[in-house]
Amino acid sequence: MILERFKPATGDIVQVPEPLLRQTVTALFEKVGLPPEDAAEGADVLVSTDLRGVESHGVSNMLRTYLQQYRQGILNPKPQWRIVREFPGTATIDGDRGLGMIQGPRAMRLAMEKAKQVGVGIVTIFNSGHLGAVGHHSMVAARGDMVGMCMTATGAQVVPTYASEPRFGTNPISIAAPARNEAPVYFDVATSAIAGNKVRLAARVGAPLLPGWVADKEGNPILEETPASERGQFWHLPLGGTREQGSHKGYGFALMAEIMSSMLAGALPAMLDAQAGYKHYFAAYNIAAFVDLDWFKDTMDRMLHTLRTTKPAAGHERVLYPGLSEYEDEQERRAHGIPLHREVIEWFAGITKELGVPPLTTK
Amino acid sequence: MILERFKPATGDIVQVPEPLLRQTVTALFEKVGLPPEDAAEGADVLVSTDLRGVESHGVSNMLRTYLQQYRQGILNPKPQWRIVREFPGTATIDGDRGLGMIQGPRAMRLAMEKAKQVGVGIVTIFNSGHLGAVGHHSMVAARGDMVGMCMTATGAQVVPTYASEPRFGTNPISIAAPARNEAPVYFDVATSAIAGNKVRLAARVGAPLLPGWVADKEGNPILEETPASERGQFWHLPLGGTREQGSHKGYGFALMAEIMSSMLAGALPAMLDAQAGYKHYFAAYNIAAFVDLDWFKDTMDRMLHTLRTTKPAAGHERVLYPGLSEYEDEQERRAHGIPLHREVIEWFAGITKELGVPPLTTK
Repeated sequence: MILERFKPATGDIVQVPEPLLRQTVTALFEKVGLPPEDAAEGADVLVSTDLRGVESHGVSNMLRTYLQQYRQGILNPKPQWRIVREFPGTATIDGDRGLGMIQGPRAMRLAMEKAKQVGVGIVTIFNSGHLGAVGHHSMVAARGDMVGMCMTATGAQVVPTYASEPRFGTNPISIAAPARNEAPVYFDVATSAIAGNKVRLAARVGAPLLPGWVADKEGNPILEETPASERGQFWHLPLGGTREQGSHKGYGFALMAEIMSSMLAGALPAMLDAQAGYKHYFAAYNIAAFVDLDWFKDTMDRMLHTLRTTKPAAGHERVLYPGLSEYEDEQERRAHGIPLHREVIEWFAGITKELGVPPLTTK
Repeated sequence: MILERFKPATGDIVQVPEPLLRQTVTALFEKVGLPPEDAAEGADVLVSTDLRGVESHGVSNMLRTYLQQYRQGILNPKPQWRIVREFPGTATIDGDRGLGMIQGPRAMRLAMEKAKQVGVGIVTIFNSGHLGAVGHHSMVAARGDMVGMCMTATGAQVVPTYASEPRFGTNPISIAAPARNEAPVYFDVATSAIAGNKVRLAARVGAPLLPGWVADKEGNPILEETPASERGQFWHLPLGGTREQGSHKGYGFALMAEIMSSMLAGALPAMLDAQAGYKHYFAAYNIAAFVDLDWFKDTMDRMLHTLRTTKPAAGHERVLYPGLSEYEDEQERRAHGIPLHREVIEWFAGITKELGVPPLTTK
């Protein structure tokens, strides 16, 4: 459901078959010291995210940062995570500076094990790296006949309503739920007006930011279009943009993600410690513990079919639901490749050469 | 954090001491057949909500509807709730047509019992009435040293992004969390641009609705100010208002509340059955199962103090956090009474007379 403005011009696009991209990303992760299993998990998260059309959190934006952080020793390529507190339905985990994106699926699987036993499982992680697309981890639960939720707390860059200084990360929240024949629900949004990675993406494709998306460095909402080119020139506004349009709600959702991810992980929020790193929250709901699983899937189908066949308002082609375009993109991209910006292809050429990994091929 | 536009003119206000209001509301509930304990619980929810300044969900807007529904037999004054499915961490409950607002605190207490055992407790209820302010039920958990979350799924009146027909309720989401000395976090918002009850409140105090809050009956967002007087003339827009301002996020949060409240309760969403009634979701997180409780409360204090002392942007007096103005209102109103619109006082005069209950006095 990405806005047209974020799509690169067609001439700048190179289609890369998914298995080839996966292979190169895995090799790069192995080269910076990850065990093969973790390298494959990391590649799976990134490539799955690109398959879903979520470019902002795929290889283009994130891989170079991750590799850099491994090479600089910020991330630990061989983390030994440690459960510091545990109940039958919960666990709090020290991530040992591992990459959150790779620890996420494992954390969700632990939450799912707990949910099998007691109906619901909650896992939090502190001392961890960037989580990638939070929706991916929720989807791990959905694939196992559970409802998954995932949130993360990131570095302070969002100004609360009426504030002049940033206090929250773009703290995204996600949910995924299975259906029978319809595309599963896959909902993953920043609690800021616009995701942090979307700003970087907008800068790369030359798209301006819309009114109400960001504030100037004194916290005043910018209510006209503004170029995205220079990160650091503005703060993020909460979802809603202004108080009148509901920014206090976006602010509250950011606080919710902070409480669930940072506070329930026993780690300081970014506003109290800029070096606190990323903190994550994973929830798995065992559907069969609440209701009949077949009823759930059939009713999800009825609901999702109703949504996507709702008559659109004037000027619009159709009504989507969260997860529908992601599912369609996935079919399309599995068949025809993942579109990468030429600049990303060039980066791959450089990094594979530098690390001594076979180059990324496109056929 | 209610907008000025929703406040009645000073001349129309009567201050009613909280204990007197509580007494009259309890008596009215008893008169329509509720057991004394339930009547007192219902009065507590409504009066607590008014104390917090959440007029939209206090006695003014809601009590007349509840009494009417009891008298019409829509609500069951003596429900026998039944757990239809249960795991150590979860329960699904048939509400037997009881008023959700009264069943809410009890459901949250059950979730808390489970959280004491396994770290987290989730309870869903179907076949129930209106839940009142969802934040109240989250606060039940916060008072017991837990993080509380509560959501509810209501009748279809919100149009999904790009849609011409309503598919969701205003499906609110809430979270509450304790601090040590700071006012606790109390976050409770509709996932629509504006709460359903706020439209009724705006109509009563003569306030117009702002651009981006509602759509016309064909789903087109209304982008100018519009009178709130005639409910039924428009549909609600999701939080965000338009796609560009993030309505797909409000839409997704509404779907999240629908999945957690309706689907995990085994009840049809309103879009599939307009008669399905209200469905509710309650979550209690046992803080001590995750982290040290003292650390949590002290760190909440540091975080909340940081938020409320953040330098405000130009033109604003201070930065609030969700729960701060509610806490301040509560101190003020406990001391000086709950401000009710004269029209509400007149309604009390009529209904107490009609039901043979001693009149509401103001001193």
